[in-house]
Amino acid sequence: MMQLPRPRIGQPIAELSTPLPLVDEDRLAANIARVQDYMDDHGLAFRPHIKTHKIPAIAAEQVKAGAKGINCQKITEAEVFADAGFEDLLITFNILGPEKLKRLVPLNARISGLKVVADSETTIRGLSAAFAAERPLSVLVECDTGGGRCGVQSPEAAIALAETIAAAPGLTFGGILTYPKANSEEAVEAFFATTREGLATRGLPCPIVSNGGTPSLFSAHKVPSATEHRAGTYVYNDRAMARAGHCSLDDCAMSILATVVSRPTEDCAILDAGSKALTSDLLGFSDYGLIVEYPDAIISGLSEEHGTVDLSKVQGRRPEIGEKVRIIPNHTCVVSNLFDLMTFHRDGIVTRVEDVAARGLVW
Amino acid sequence: MMQLPRPRIGQPIAELSTPLPLVDEDRLAANIARVQDYMDDHGLAFRPHIKTHKIPAIAAEQVKAGAKGINCQKITEAEVFADAGFEDLLITFNILGPEKLKRLVPLNARISGLKVVADSETTIRGLSAAFAAERPLSVLVECDTGGGRCGVQSPEAAIALAETIAAAPGLTFGGILTYPKANSEEAVEAFFATTREGLATRGLPCPIVSNGGTPSLFSAHKVPSATEHRAGTYVYNDRAMARAGHCSLDDCAMSILATVVSRPTEDCAILDAGSKALTSDLLGFSDYGLIVEYPDAIISGLSEEHGTVDLSKVQGRRPEIGEKVRIIPNHTCVVSNLFDLMTFHRDGIVTRVEDVAARGLVW
Repeated sequence: MMQLPRPRIGQPIAELSTPLPLVDEDRLAANIARVQDYMDDHGLAFRPHIKTHKIPAIAAEQVKAGAKGINCQKITEAEVFADAGFEDLLITFNILGPEKLKRLVPLNARISGLKVVADSETTIRGLSAAFAAERPLSVLVECDTGGGRCGVQSPEAAIALAETIAAAPGLTFGGILTYPKANSEEAVEAFFATTREGLATRGLPCPIVSNGGTPSLFSAHKVPSATEHRAGTYVYNDRAMARAGHCSLDDCAMSILATVVSRPTEDCAILDAGSKALTSDLLGFSDYGLIVEYPDAIISGLSEEHGTVDLSKVQGRRPEIGEKVRIIPNHTCVVSNLFDLMTFHRDGIVTRVEDVAARGLVW
Repeated sequence: MMQLPRPRIGQPIAELSTPLPLVDEDRLAANIARVQDYMDDHGLAFRPHIKTHKIPAIAAEQVKAGAKGINCQKITEAEVFADAGFEDLLITFNILGPEKLKRLVPLNARISGLKVVADSETTIRGLSAAFAAERPLSVLVECDTGGGRCGVQSPEAAIALAETIAAAPGLTFGGILTYPKANSEEAVEAFFATTREGLATRGLPCPIVSNGGTPSLFSAHKVPSATEHRAGTYVYNDRAMARAGHCSLDDCAMSILATVVSRPTEDCAILDAGSKALTSDLLGFSDYGLIVEYPDAIISGLSEEHGTVDLSKVQGRRPEIGEKVRIIPNHTCVVSNLFDLMTFHRDGIVTRVEDVAARGLVW
């Protein structure tokens, strides 16, 4: 693999070659502290999702601040974090197929707190067959409380699946979990409360009741049945989270440093950041990120290596060829997946460079 | 970096763990032959763009079929292909900044046919300063013939910039180039013809006149002033190229193997292919790819690791949990950038596995 030069500690970010993702240390620390304080104030356990950063050193900061464990989306991500010493790992994905199941067994053998989810009997059968003669695996039931992705559709179905897990060789029932729609705390609480009652009636202990999401994170206390909350994006924040009201643009820790490589016309600038640096995620926006130095400029289109910027609304000075700008991305998590290194800075001076150790791990 | 197991030669693709991008060998070979034959028939030199595959072994097949050289978008991509023995490399990007210019000098020293582009005096000044005391670098003028990305805006501006290059220490004028809008052959020819005449009048030889693009590639002969054509996507093809009329869906060599991991409702399936496998590129479509086995299913939404499929229009049998499907992506080039390995097959049996050697190289 071709290695790009690593930025050096103490180097001004203005000197660095582009495109390059940057994380502001002070904003990162403030985001971690702010959300952990909120969870502590409300007696909620907190489980950060590592998808946003994919970096063990940041997960360590989250745990040091008080997080109870971490959330991964894939087995191989969990392996990276197990290698880094984390023990309480929840993989929120239906794991199917012999290659993946075979890989899950040794992972469960070497860390104390591995947990996965299931939303069907098919997934449970596969897990049970793989773990019947092994150290038991903890499985949570994933519930669709309105998010419209994975999950059983009713408390009754959740209870039935919990009983199936509890009865399956090699598995223990670990609790219930949802990835909800934003601002749907009432629906989540109704689903969770009914499910908990039904489980209690049947004498099935439900150790974890896990809610999630960054956009309406500061309403997590409106789901009193939950024992923990999971969130990823809060750690860096992005333009979509600012629009959702979770944070301000000044709380966005990640930006992408880019260079103006062409000024073909008076109203157009071309950046060296395209979909390979920003991704095509719109998340409801009609443009591809916010240029910090030129907030009235519009990143109107991306090709793989070019960002096309409409300057027609920019009053006064306009960017020159060779000038560097910083972009707050629409969606920060997907940017992390595009780069092998993340460069951190404080007040524009590089503080450290971390490998994005769990980048690109698709299963 | 976490290594996933490599598929083995001779293994049926139905056995492979997902998500996994696949390339059909026969379709790949036919795409290469079909386009090279067209170029040969019309006496046009052909320069494949490696952005689509990022794999030296495929570029070697393209050159073996008759391509004159290759096209890269970034210096570090060109380094990968120079390491693999390619000599005629065109980098179609304005290269700016000391780190990149410093890296370009040894690359130009070690291969015989390096060429870059410029569309401004700023870019030319930087290149000239870096190469004044070195082996001269060939620089083409990038022209905006209606594509609306980089490029000078008129033949007069192209001629002026050509003269600037020809007069700059360390640089030689290599020709003119455009990345056009699809189906704009008349405008491209007008721009090129006028520029060539003006250059001839001034006694400036113009060795390369380079047109590009896959969507209207089979109209490349309508630009008689061009000496060469560049194209990337044709090698794999994708849903967008089929819609543009360049190929049929049966000419799409790349598909993404995915597994149905959940069937939360009668009308919904969840795949383990999300934006980390397919990207969010819509390219004018309202959904995120075509499921070969269920063409009436609609991939209506993606999160990072989940694809949400609307089955409401699917008549008859619907996919089950654990079933594998193949997806033709909207845009093939960006999928190549997400995976470290590419798996090739013939009639569903793995033929080889290649490293995507130039993946993720952003500068």
